[in-house]
Amino acid sequence: MALLAKAAKSTTPNVTSNFTARRLASTSTPQTQLSGLKINSKRLWKTLHETCEWGAAHRYGDNPTDTGMARLTLTDADATVRGWLSDQVQNLGCILHIDQMGNMFARQKGRLNSPVPMTAMGSHLDTQPRGGRYDGILGIMAALEVLKTMKENGYQTEFDVGLINWTNEEGARFPKSMASSGVWAGQIPLQEAWNLRDIHNPDITLKSELERHGYLGDIACSHDPQSGGYPLGAHFELHIEQGPILLESQRSIGVVQGSQAYRWLSFTVTGRDAHTGTTPLSARRDPLLAASRMIAASNEIAQRHGALASTGIFKIPSNASTNTIASELTFTLDLRHPNDSIVDTVQAECLESFSKIASQDGKGVSFTWQIDTDSKAVRFDEDCINAVRTVAHGLVGPDKYMDITSGAGHDSVYTSRRCPTTMIFVPCRDGVSHHPEEYCSPEDCAIGTQALLEAVVCYDKLRIKQKSDEGR
Amino acid sequence: MALLAKAAKSTTPNVTSNFTARRLASTSTPQTQLSGLKINSKRLWKTLHETCEWGAAHRYGDNPTDTGMARLTLTDADATVRGWLSDQVQNLGCILHIDQMGNMFARQKGRLNSPVPMTAMGSHLDTQPRGGRYDGILGIMAALEVLKTMKENGYQTEFDVGLINWTNEEGARFPKSMASSGVWAGQIPLQEAWNLRDIHNPDITLKSELERHGYLGDIACSHDPQSGGYPLGAHFELHIEQGPILLESQRSIGVVQGSQAYRWLSFTVTGRDAHTGTTPLSARRDPLLAASRMIAASNEIAQRHGALASTGIFKIPSNASTNTIASELTFTLDLRHPNDSIVDTVQAECLESFSKIASQDGKGVSFTWQIDTDSKAVRFDEDCINAVRTVAHGLVGPDKYMDITSGAGHDSVYTSRRCPTTMIFVPCRDGVSHHPEEYCSPEDCAIGTQALLEAVVCYDKLRIKQKSDEGR
Repeated sequence: MALLAKAAKSTTPNVTSNFTARRLASTSTPQTQLSGLKINSKRLWKTLHETCEWGAAHRYGDNPTDTGMARLTLTDADATVRGWLSDQVQNLGCILHIDQMGNMFARQKGRLNSPVPMTAMGSHLDTQPRGGRYDGILGIMAALEVLKTMKENGYQTEFDVGLINWTNEEGARFPKSMASSGVWAGQIPLQEAWNLRDIHNPDITLKSELERHGYLGDIACSHDPQSGGYPLGAHFELHIEQGPILLESQRSIGVVQGSQAYRWLSFTVTGRDAHTGTTPLSARRDPLLAASRMIAASNEIAQRHGALASTGIFKIPSNASTNTIASELTFTLDLRHPNDSIVDTVQAECLESFSKIASQDGKGVSFTWQIDTDSKAVRFDEDCINAVRTVAHGLVGPDKYMDITSGAGHDSVYTSRRCPTTMIFVPCRDGVSHHPEEYCSPEDCAIGTQALLEAVVCYDKLRIKQKSDEGR
Repeated sequence: MALLAKAAKSTTPNVTSNFTARRLASTSTPQTQLSGLKINSKRLWKTLHETCEWGAAHRYGDNPTDTGMARLTLTDADATVRGWLSDQVQNLGCILHIDQMGNMFARQKGRLNSPVPMTAMGSHLDTQPRGGRYDGILGIMAALEVLKTMKENGYQTEFDVGLINWTNEEGARFPKSMASSGVWAGQIPLQEAWNLRDIHNPDITLKSELERHGYLGDIACSHDPQSGGYPLGAHFELHIEQGPILLESQRSIGVVQGSQAYRWLSFTVTGRDAHTGTTPLSARRDPLLAASRMIAASNEIAQRHGALASTGIFKIPSNASTNTIASELTFTLDLRHPNDSIVDTVQAECLESFSKIASQDGKGVSFTWQIDTDSKAVRFDEDCINAVRTVAHGLVGPDKYMDITSGAGHDSVYTSRRCPTTMIFVPCRDGVSHHPEEYCSPEDCAIGTQALLEAVVCYDKLRIKQKSDEGR
């Protein structure tokens, strides 16, 4: 904690750079330009699972690592792994900064001793309450392994490189996903994020937990150096795919193009409670029947447009009984597509269809709806994407990587608004995540980590090329 | 309580009669043969609402009677109204017997001083937790009003007549509907009923509450006089329809033909939890989508057969979230039709359809099912039905009554297995019951009560005719 307090007090790299706003030269044909460095896959695997002892939960098998994780943000287990990470990066010679949201920035100086923002490798150490050992954790452990590999090989990038642990990515304890990268990107007000309450204990706020663990840093949580924030030169994130596409396509690396648009709606359908035995179908106002038809219809509409429509929550009154028609219920609808306008179209068609369904059976039902979350499609940075594509080509050959769009939200979606960003996906077993049995093989963890290293090196070279182009 | 203890100790009318097993002459054309007696509708209304002060709850309007009821069986409020009823019937000169299930049998001697079982008017004083003022209560208050009207007019039936308050009809506190008429009819074991536990406090059993309130009578709860039980000559029950059919047909009296068959099934649909953003539709095993299609399909199948299919309970795991496909859910299906074989057909078609649906989307889901309750269709006694039809014709004319089948379960369904039984339905507002706003107008309460009186008198005359036929 003393260490952290010291880190939190160190000065911000308070420099301005418009570097990130400019476009670097794009490489359309991947060329094999690997670093010659090789990450230590055994050390990576060992480190990942050793640190997963802090927060291990939900055992599902006999092997020591056959557990999931319950390392919610800013719990004691999270504080322990944060403390461990602080020691690790400082032992490597990194400078560690903590901002007002507890985001941890570990910075390794580059050869140029340049003051411009670092090329970052970021992800998160927090998990879902029934989460796995790879979502977020792999990204941090990979970044640490990259720094270790560079250090032990005496390799120095031109510009500074570093590691970031973003606070409360999962939003599982304090209910806002990617809260701290959101504040950093200027998309979520700091006070709002600080005031997020523990979902089980409203007396605890995110800020009070930052204070308790000594992670309320004094650097502004901002991308803007003018505000005392911590700007980034680029942001690369290695992550498990959380879906089955790579696995089913037999690819090792996903070159992430961006993040699809998603919109969360919630519906309240109102009818009238009635006895199931004494009320003819023609006299009913049955919200459960109507909602069932609506959910089936939303699926058909989404399929027609190649989009996703999903209902995750379906809630009827707790006094429900077999022989009573419920009076009211709520359900959610999660619409997704890489194209914003398709999401608009699917929503419009769903609403039109739901209106018809509402008057279809018996005496009809009424419904209200609202948009709870609306996240536009994001396109990642072409230079970053090209860097990943180039190294993937070199590492696994043309048949083992593919372009892919992220279905889930990530801190990279927020960083992409403020610095060149992309992600690297690796396959996970059965496409399962947010589940104790989430799994990524040692081989895939290693390939992803090597790709992360190579992408950072490749991008570093692009930056130096850009710098020399500027010099002409 | 002293009174009750005394009543419980009085001797059982331990007579055997095979009267109930024989068919009385049936009247196919209703003939107007009214008694000349007239119930006091103001007294009926006043008594009903005064006694509803014990257990009144869920105010919905400004009038003193604008509340529902929460008078669960064998609560203090129920004990109070039982005590009041004991006083009332004994003041009228009735003999009160209490059986082992707390069923209250009040018996008025007939002119013949015959030992054969009485013609009973039965229903229940207990309510749902969010119940109304008429379901069950009207049946008891009407029976009491009939006894009062006879008494003050010096009218004596030939055979004994009486009133029954059945314990725990609703099954809302001790979870088995019509538990005590079920024991009486030999359909539910006494021990099983005694051991029913309060749904909110498992330390309390139905038997312990019977003991606490002094309602554990020493008469066997049985229809069989050989076992020391309390046989009945007939059972008439006045009840609100609990549906909209009489109202929409503009009828005042429903001549109840019997009770439709109903079968309660529960389904567990299993898929796999998955991220809504990262899992293509083709890779999903989505139980919520499948269950929605199943519910819509069950409705279509039921409609095709003129049956009822209803889902009252739909339960997904409590950790559901907008962006996660649930792994498993359960839902109920309540199938009803007056014909047992149609219920079989609807069930078979539902299961066939559900199997198809289970493999329809993505990678499919699996499901299991079970039958929770299976209640066969019941046809009430022709003589009793004819008695009601005759008096309905005389009271309201041919356009204001109709044959109807009960959609709900009633104590009469159990008594019909052991004695000639039928019911009289009166309309209730919007067909609503099991709801605080359940309402039956003073006029309809009065017509129903007059019909109950006339039906009992009419049936009493049929009994004497049968007796004289036997004498020939």
